[in-house]
Amino acid sequence: MNDSTVMRALLFDFYGELLTDKQREYFDLHYNDDLSLNEIAEQAGTSRQAVWDNIRRAEASLNDIESRIGLVGRFSETRDTLDGVLRGLDELAGLTDGRAHELCGELKKSIEQIRL
Amino acid sequence: MNDSTVMRALLFDFYGELLTDKQREYFDLHYNDDLSLNEIAEQAGTSRQAVWDNIRRAEASLNDIESRIGLVGRFSETRDTLDGVLRGLDELAGLTDGRAHELCGELKKSIEQIRL
Repeated sequence: MNDSTVMRALLFDFYGELLTDKQREYFDLHYNDDLSLNEIAEQAGTSRQAVWDNIRRAEASLNDIESRIGLVGRFSETRDTLDGVLRGLDELAGLTDGRAHELCGELKKSIEQIRL
Repeated sequence: MNDSTVMRALLFDFYGELLTDKQREYFDLHYNDDLSLNEIAEQAGTSRQAVWDNIRRAEASLNDIESRIGLVGRFSETRDTLDGVLRGLDELAGLTDGRAHELCGELKKSIEQIRL
C-alpha cells in the first residue's frame, strides 16, 4: 500500500461514521471491497455517475474533517513514538534480568494493546 | 473538575472545530471563559435564548460525534495505559543502572511527549 492508500484507509477508519450512509457504503465497496464504479452502480440500482459523486464527496468530507481536527495525524504520531518505545523496551530487556527483565515484557504487552 | 466537566472539555478539544462558528464561540465563552448566558448575549448582541440554543446544540453535536467515532474514549484509554507504562518505567529505573537506567529515562521522555 502506498502512503495515500494508507491515509485514505485511516481517514475512513476514523471518520467513516460521520459520512452519509451512501457515501460510506459506496466508498467502502470501492476502496475496501475493490468493486468497480459500474459494479456498485448495478448492485445499488443507480448510475455510475451517482456512485462516483458520492465517493468523491466522501473523500472531500474525510479530508475536510482531518484538516479541521487532525486526529489521524495525532494518532499516527503516537503510533510512531510507541514503535520507538517498543524497540527501546527490547533493548532494555536485553540488558536486564530478573524482575527488571520481566517488567520490560509487561510494559511491551501494555503498549501493544493500545498501539493501533 | 468532575468527570462530566472533564469529558465536556475533552469533547470540545477534539471536535470543537466541527461545530458551527457560533456554537463553538458561545460554548467556549460559557464553559471555558466562564461567562454567563446573559453576558454572552449582551456581548454578541443577541438573546439569552439564542445563546443557550447554540450551546445546547453544540453539546448535542459533540456527544453525537463521540457516539459515532469514539475517539475521545480511545484517547482516554491510551492515556491511562501510558500512565501505567510511565509508572512501570519509574520502577524499572529504580532496578537498573548504566545504559539500562539511562534508557528508562529516554523512554519516559518519549512517552511524555505524546501523552495528552
